[in-house]
Amino acid sequence: MTRVRVEITMSLDGYVAGPAATLEAPLGAGGEQLHEWLFRNASWRARHGLGGGDGTDADNGIVDASVEATGAYVMGRKMFSGGEGPWESDPNPRGWWGDDPPFHLPVFVLTHHEREPLALQGGTTFTFVTGGIEAALEQARSAAADRDVLIAGGADVARQAVAAGLVDELTVHVAPVLLGDGVRLFDSFDAPIELSPVDVANGPIAAHLTYRIGGHR
Amino acid sequence: MTRVRVEITMSLDGYVAGPAATLEAPLGAGGEQLHEWLFRNASWRARHGLGGGDGTDADNGIVDASVEATGAYVMGRKMFSGGEGPWESDPNPRGWWGDDPPFHLPVFVLTHHEREPLALQGGTTFTFVTGGIEAALEQARSAAADRDVLIAGGADVARQAVAAGLVDELTVHVAPVLLGDGVRLFDSFDAPIELSPVDVANGPIAAHLTYRIGGHR
Repeated sequence: MTRVRVEITMSLDGYVAGPAATLEAPLGAGGEQLHEWLFRNASWRARHGLGGGDGTDADNGIVDASVEATGAYVMGRKMFSGGEGPWESDPNPRGWWGDDPPFHLPVFVLTHHEREPLALQGGTTFTFVTGGIEAALEQARSAAADRDVLIAGGADVARQAVAAGLVDELTVHVAPVLLGDGVRLFDSFDAPIELSPVDVANGPIAAHLTYRIGGHR
Repeated sequence: MTRVRVEITMSLDGYVAGPAATLEAPLGAGGEQLHEWLFRNASWRARHGLGGGDGTDADNGIVDASVEATGAYVMGRKMFSGGEGPWESDPNPRGWWGDDPPFHLPVFVLTHHEREPLALQGGTTFTFVTGGIEAALEQARSAAADRDVLIAGGADVARQAVAAGLVDELTVHVAPVLLGDGVRLFDSFDAPIELSPVDVANGPIAAHLTYRIGGHR
């Protein structure tokens, strides 16, 4: 049965980006440490056209298991296009993922701009959905068949989906850094949301905490 | 060798209390879920004069191991007195811990008010330190002999100690709730602080993440 999952990396103190983000340092001060667990990860590197990395540890296994389970992705427009600029000024942007994006699956992009689907190398097709998060998830469910729909980010799209009760499972990759300030995970919900622990995996860099979000389906 | 440790419970999204805290709900909206892992914990209940609880799970083992390792505590004045009121109006307050506090060890309380030590039942002695966090840690180190000094809270005292490079090890107990807003763990550091993962323990309710904070001694 198709589950809707969210995965997101945060600092131990709950930030998905550090303070003072700039174009050169979009993750803010200290934010590059958030994704160190991915950058040294053989599975992740191979999918992004890079060699090397460590292929045997738990951080790596987490990426493999997630990829294996996923049948379609949903993402926000900024995650597709790399910010406001390219999307607005380029009539036919490819996003910042290049000609052979690392998804190799259908990807549904939330946007306000209607646009034809964009089929790229390696099986990645970006489909642009203007009907909101529920419509995007509905299309992604169909495309995923029996596999999962993974909401890949950004944090605002993940928050919308969690707040609307549309998410079955949430995995937080906890990076070993205190950022102290910055962009919070799921900033400003209206109400607390209870979680049911499913699994904890301990990588050499990140801890991976998975929860079920109950009661909505 | 004596280590200085900090332990603190936070929500998955990085809050140590929810929004809209009141005297009746000092942990804010949804905040009571933060400490559910302790309330059902046989070791914690026994130390607080309560019966029952589950004595066999990993959440319980975490409490036992922490107690076993600890030789002295440091805490802030609000954690001792239960807020501003009692301390200011009562010339000889016992804090809100009762006649037989659950510490059974020397406890060093950070305060601006000089005061004689307070020896209570069961081996708990509160010593009041007006010389700041470094002085409190120095006295606690002597009292702890070869065991650890545990900074028991609140979050502001823990933050001071971490920011000043005085902490060897940090354990965050992650509670299975998204609070969405409230009081952040270690609010507003000046700079990111890198951590080295030491251990991850998976209780039925909480995940317990332990890190070494390097390079300061």
